[in-house]
Amino acid sequence: MFRNLCTGVSRITVRFGTRSMSISSSRSVDQLLSGRNDDHGGVIVEMSTEPVDAVVFGSLLRASILHWRQEGKKGVWIKVPIELVNIVEPAVKEGFYFHHAEPKYLMLVYWIPETPSTIPVNATHRVGIGGFVMNEKKEVLVVQEKSGILRGTGVWKFPTGVVEEGEDICDAAVREVKEETGIDTKFVEILAFRQSHKSFFEKSDLFFVCLLQPLSFNIQPQELEIEAAQWMPFEEYTAQQFVQKNEVLKYISDVCLSKREGKYSGFSPVPTTGSFSTTESYLYLNRHCLNSP
Amino acid sequence: MFRNLCTGVSRITVRFGTRSMSISSSRSVDQLLSGRNDDHGGVIVEMSTEPVDAVVFGSLLRASILHWRQEGKKGVWIKVPIELVNIVEPAVKEGFYFHHAEPKYLMLVYWIPETPSTIPVNATHRVGIGGFVMNEKKEVLVVQEKSGILRGTGVWKFPTGVVEEGEDICDAAVREVKEETGIDTKFVEILAFRQSHKSFFEKSDLFFVCLLQPLSFNIQPQELEIEAAQWMPFEEYTAQQFVQKNEVLKYISDVCLSKREGKYSGFSPVPTTGSFSTTESYLYLNRHCLNSP
Repeated sequence: MFRNLCTGVSRITVRFGTRSMSISSSRSVDQLLSGRNDDHGGVIVEMSTEPVDAVVFGSLLRASILHWRQEGKKGVWIKVPIELVNIVEPAVKEGFYFHHAEPKYLMLVYWIPETPSTIPVNATHRVGIGGFVMNEKKEVLVVQEKSGILRGTGVWKFPTGVVEEGEDICDAAVREVKEETGIDTKFVEILAFRQSHKSFFEKSDLFFVCLLQPLSFNIQPQELEIEAAQWMPFEEYTAQQFVQKNEVLKYISDVCLSKREGKYSGFSPVPTTGSFSTTESYLYLNRHCLNSP
Repeated sequence: MFRNLCTGVSRITVRFGTRSMSISSSRSVDQLLSGRNDDHGGVIVEMSTEPVDAVVFGSLLRASILHWRQEGKKGVWIKVPIELVNIVEPAVKEGFYFHHAEPKYLMLVYWIPETPSTIPVNATHRVGIGGFVMNEKKEVLVVQEKSGILRGTGVWKFPTGVVEEGEDICDAAVREVKEETGIDTKFVEILAFRQSHKSFFEKSDLFFVCLLQPLSFNIQPQELEIEAAQWMPFEEYTAQQFVQKNEVLKYISDVCLSKREGKYSGFSPVPTTGSFSTTESYLYLNRHCLNSP
């Protein structure tokens, strides 16, 4: 984590990452924080969880900024583990600001050049899924939830859930249906999606309605979240006041009905590689239309 | 921001939000932070930017947690403006952790009950758009970028950009095409989308390919980001090595070709209200299939 430019007397031992070094507390600090270069002319400093004194860190950071400025660096990122929360204040005093945070770390960023910042924006959306699962009797898989705004209302709804960090939408839909109802399914396609705003503080929400084909039929509701689960005739589901009076749910049930009758095509996942990386990612598209003559 | 339970001698004046109050520095603090209740049995404390001493804040917070615990509160949120970065460390010492952050604030959270936390996850995805704009001569609107990995490669690509906080995907597509090329457009539909992971630290990416109908034709490339822009015969665009060798771009150009020939239907936006709120939000679905007899 460090690049040692110091030949002075050692007094305080500080460890960053895998390397340890010493800093004199009685003279000006001439060590630098070190990080790895990113692809955009910037530097990423990942602090380890080893304790570091806030004053010592402040000095190191000032010296490092001078050095990075001379090197023509642009954005500087410092990933601060929550154990080192004491260095957040000195970093902000040097001009750093918050970029994003997760439970165990805070990402700080600083833009060195005089030119306008090209620091990318933070994640803006949470992604959720709802699973439309229909059996051969044209019954739909529905649940009643133990918490949330529908608790105790008697409303039957599709299983829903949140896509986890790094998870594919198609995998999340299969996982959530399995977790909530015990039913194994195969992902078929995305029937529709909704974008809404300010769903959680200032963040937005993308909710994907997924068609899943059931592979098992014996329901085992999850104890913690689910009050009840059942296979329900589709007409009974759509006849609920809650569905009839909610414009979004009404549209979604129309889409499901149209799908049931073989008249609707959504977006199905196509595994792909090669968009600027070798990582596999899913492209969702109307394969039915694409393959039609 | 405060609820004053104190009748003691005032020494230090602290201001939170719109109310000001006084705290004795020589005796135990018996004031409490106050916040508004959320819909899930929790409390949201929004700190103002008025300076507050870290030690004073720590005492207040300890007393407040005791009080919230007695009240049976669940999640406690503290929104810390960057000006009050000094209170982050005392809050973390009391058991708070990072939830999310934006340039000007850090959201801390603490789960009081013994039961498992139901604190919702942070935003996980950034959302981007690419605009497929074709004129009556079947030429497609393409740009060359001044920065990024395609800089200097001679590659012509669709205009692309990032959906801003609180912005609808359909609006973002129209805005980005206008900004990069000066061309006015009308949003038609989403042709396909891709989900990819670890695109930016641990965050994921959703990229929507949007079909837009041009309303003007005189190109004015944006100076800062765009090297050049032009209307290019579609066949010339797809013939580029860069497109042919990239699986994702190849699929997308197949979709665009199919669309041009009237054989493809994507998802078009339907404005809706009423999914648990009165806010308008767009539902994207295959309206062509839905309306077909």
